[in-house]
Amino acid sequence: MAYFDVASSAPLHPVARQALQASLDEGWADPARLYREGRRARLLLDASREAAAEAVGCRPDELTFTPSGTHAVHSGIAGALAGRHRAGRHLVVSAVEHSSVLHAADAHEAAGGAVERVPVERSGAVDPEAYAGALRDDTALACLQSANHEVGTVQPVAEVAAACRAAGVPLLVDAAQSLAWGPVDGDWSLLAASAHKWGGPAGVGLLAVRKGVRFAARGPADERESGRSAGFPNLPAIVAAAASLRAVRDEAAAEAERLRGLVGRIRTRVAESVPEVEVVGDPVRRLPHLVTFSCLYVDGEALLHELDRSGFSVSSGSSCTSSTLTPSHVLHAMGVLSEGNVRVSLPLGVAEADVERFLEVLPGVVAGVRERLGAPVAGAAGASGGGGEPVVDALGKRCPVPVIELAKVIGDVPVGGTVRVLADDAAARLDIPAWCGMRGQEYVGEEPAERGAAHVVRRLV
Amino acid sequence: MAYFDVASSAPLHPVARQALQASLDEGWADPARLYREGRRARLLLDASREAAAEAVGCRPDELTFTPSGTHAVHSGIAGALAGRHRAGRHLVVSAVEHSSVLHAADAHEAAGGAVERVPVERSGAVDPEAYAGALRDDTALACLQSANHEVGTVQPVAEVAAACRAAGVPLLVDAAQSLAWGPVDGDWSLLAASAHKWGGPAGVGLLAVRKGVRFAARGPADERESGRSAGFPNLPAIVAAAASLRAVRDEAAAEAERLRGLVGRIRTRVAESVPEVEVVGDPVRRLPHLVTFSCLYVDGEALLHELDRSGFSVSSGSSCTSSTLTPSHVLHAMGVLSEGNVRVSLPLGVAEADVERFLEVLPGVVAGVRERLGAPVAGAAGASGGGGEPVVDALGKRCPVPVIELAKVIGDVPVGGTVRVLADDAAARLDIPAWCGMRGQEYVGEEPAERGAAHVVRRLV
Repeated sequence: MAYFDVASSAPLHPVARQALQASLDEGWADPARLYREGRRARLLLDASREAAAEAVGCRPDELTFTPSGTHAVHSGIAGALAGRHRAGRHLVVSAVEHSSVLHAADAHEAAGGAVERVPVERSGAVDPEAYAGALRDDTALACLQSANHEVGTVQPVAEVAAACRAAGVPLLVDAAQSLAWGPVDGDWSLLAASAHKWGGPAGVGLLAVRKGVRFAARGPADERESGRSAGFPNLPAIVAAAASLRAVRDEAAAEAERLRGLVGRIRTRVAESVPEVEVVGDPVRRLPHLVTFSCLYVDGEALLHELDRSGFSVSSGSSCTSSTLTPSHVLHAMGVLSEGNVRVSLPLGVAEADVERFLEVLPGVVAGVRERLGAPVAGAAGASGGGGEPVVDALGKRCPVPVIELAKVIGDVPVGGTVRVLADDAAARLDIPAWCGMRGQEYVGEEPAERGAAHVVRRLV
Repeated sequence: MAYFDVASSAPLHPVARQALQASLDEGWADPARLYREGRRARLLLDASREAAAEAVGCRPDELTFTPSGTHAVHSGIAGALAGRHRAGRHLVVSAVEHSSVLHAADAHEAAGGAVERVPVERSGAVDPEAYAGALRDDTALACLQSANHEVGTVQPVAEVAAACRAAGVPLLVDAAQSLAWGPVDGDWSLLAASAHKWGGPAGVGLLAVRKGVRFAARGPADERESGRSAGFPNLPAIVAAAASLRAVRDEAAAEAERLRGLVGRIRTRVAESVPEVEVVGDPVRRLPHLVTFSCLYVDGEALLHELDRSGFSVSSGSSCTSSTLTPSHVLHAMGVLSEGNVRVSLPLGVAEADVERFLEVLPGVVAGVRERLGAPVAGAAGASGGGGEPVVDALGKRCPVPVIELAKVIGDVPVGGTVRVLADDAAARLDIPAWCGMRGQEYVGEEPAERGAAHVVRRLV
């Protein structure tokens, strides 16, 4: 098996495993107790905090261990908003943040706060000027990820942090995807991260809050972790998290160029070897190990299943792979194709041969899924609706069927004429315009319909 | 070293260690993913949930894994209160709950809710009738621990659960201290527990919510754990928690009588061998492994320090061992002496010889601490304030000094006369009346003073 989904969760790093096992004997007692076992636990906790703080680039007393990256994000956002409630209740986030950030923003909105979601460019990056323009006098907090978790695009954190600093607004950086690769540049105020993303154990998040940042922890009082993270500390996991972050950083420095090259190879070869594919995300300002592409006329779930059968574990932002049957909000915000979406995120030390085998297998797997779905082949003509404007009724059909049906009839539409696609699948709204962009056709727009929506497409070529 | 503080945190059970290590290889992937590694993780998660649910006595779909017992309590109380907001905003708790419950109650109060803290008897137990009397038409939730964490007294959960059921109020049971010993009796609605208390790893709590109980999870949305516990699951720890709970239950059944006997020996021998000691908690309805006593004229911190030097790790509810310099709220609610307080909680498999050695060492350690503090010895008379009512000025002096000063002058007070003790230490309010009770003197009451309070004591014997 080749596991290409470290952006979801990385296998435990050997250093994490060693540290975890070593500290099971010393790290079970309560570090708040004064007896020998407690003092030993306290030493481990303090040393872990120092090591993690050094890797993050903050002071140890600015760093809190939380039970997960999600807890770090939730606590960080809630605490910073509460600490700055006098400034106002306006929260700025990018449209492509991790769901933990967006869910915290939704909760803030539900409680009467205001949220502005800054759009991104087609690369997935925010425009620093657009982000700065969203800051207001009553903005209590701004959030920006260091790099996107689905497409790997690196965000202009330093520029946005400078704009936030100038506006007097604290910036919380979700560094979950990038912390293994190095500290976050720029003058951030709060930072959140998650150990299992870098090969540390599950059960450990990091929340850094710079001195001077107003912060009022939410929830019932608890004396642990400066009152910022309730509950008995998960010490062996904390020790393993801190130890592995240092080890992973060392390896990452050595591995970055090799993985960057392998991802570059995937970007090029997929575009060459798979027809009707869109490789998304910034080709240059990106994480070294992560690449995402979408395949027209492909069912993402079937694709993942076939890749799994071939020995490759990858993930997808396609709607059919989501429990809510909506496509990834990241791909949606970027305005790129979501059907047949595949995210590949390579582990440190990945074998080049595994990447090569993936590139060899992929075109056949995609072709097989397309064939089973009856996807159009180049030059094939479909059945038309007769003399008038043809109508494709794809109601009740899930991604990628509406796009496949559209592609089948477009050959029958006279150049300059239009076709209407009736669809009620959430992905159609994203994928029909994306198809138009890829095929040089014009997406005229969406009109309300009795069920779902009618997507109007004009044939240009 | 003899570690006698499992009520704080138990060393990792061998079965927990094995399960943790075994699942490090299989349990790092995201159980929500459909590829092989994810499916394996999902199998482990499902199997752990079944095992834990069986031990708790609930259905697997009623059980949620949380990052700690504190999170289970906080989420359980907040979710149940929110789910029952139409019933009202009244919350009933016992006065001797764990701080996680009381802090959640404080937060509810701060948010405008009403809280009733049901007092306990001198044994530490609530009176079921008094508890039932606290339930109102607008009571949204009631909370009661299965057994007290500081004194070991078992609460009448089944009776209180029946009263709650009759009143239509859900009962949340904090079972953190007792789950190792068996399932919680009675018709409870919600249950919280913590794995590191039974020898499982840190980082795992349990929250059970019976079907039919109205529950609305608080905080930002998250799809994990039925929406009741946010963040990536700590799977190896969850596997270890579930496996060790079953193993510990088996051992506990075999160990209960032996530990009950050892604790009984401690209760008897401490009362015999240490002068001026109060053994607290119910002598019969108690946890098998836990006993607490308080020593007059003793500084709890010094006592813990000396016991640590002698190789015994115990904890204390004395004010001098608390970061807030207030005595344990449990001892306060029971109305028992808090100075020189020691809690002994024995691990499964404890060596009888270690308990014997503790009983041999303790009298000398207590005597040494008393000697260094200048505590009164039997029959010694102190200096009086002259002809009138003597005044002991213990302002600025910490527990146990005010009581020591009082004991030194009581011999100079004529029988029937009074003495005033000026004190501003929080423990004096508890310990001066407790001293009176132990010495057969009358505690007349507390009067306001320029600083602190004046405690008036009448000499009867």
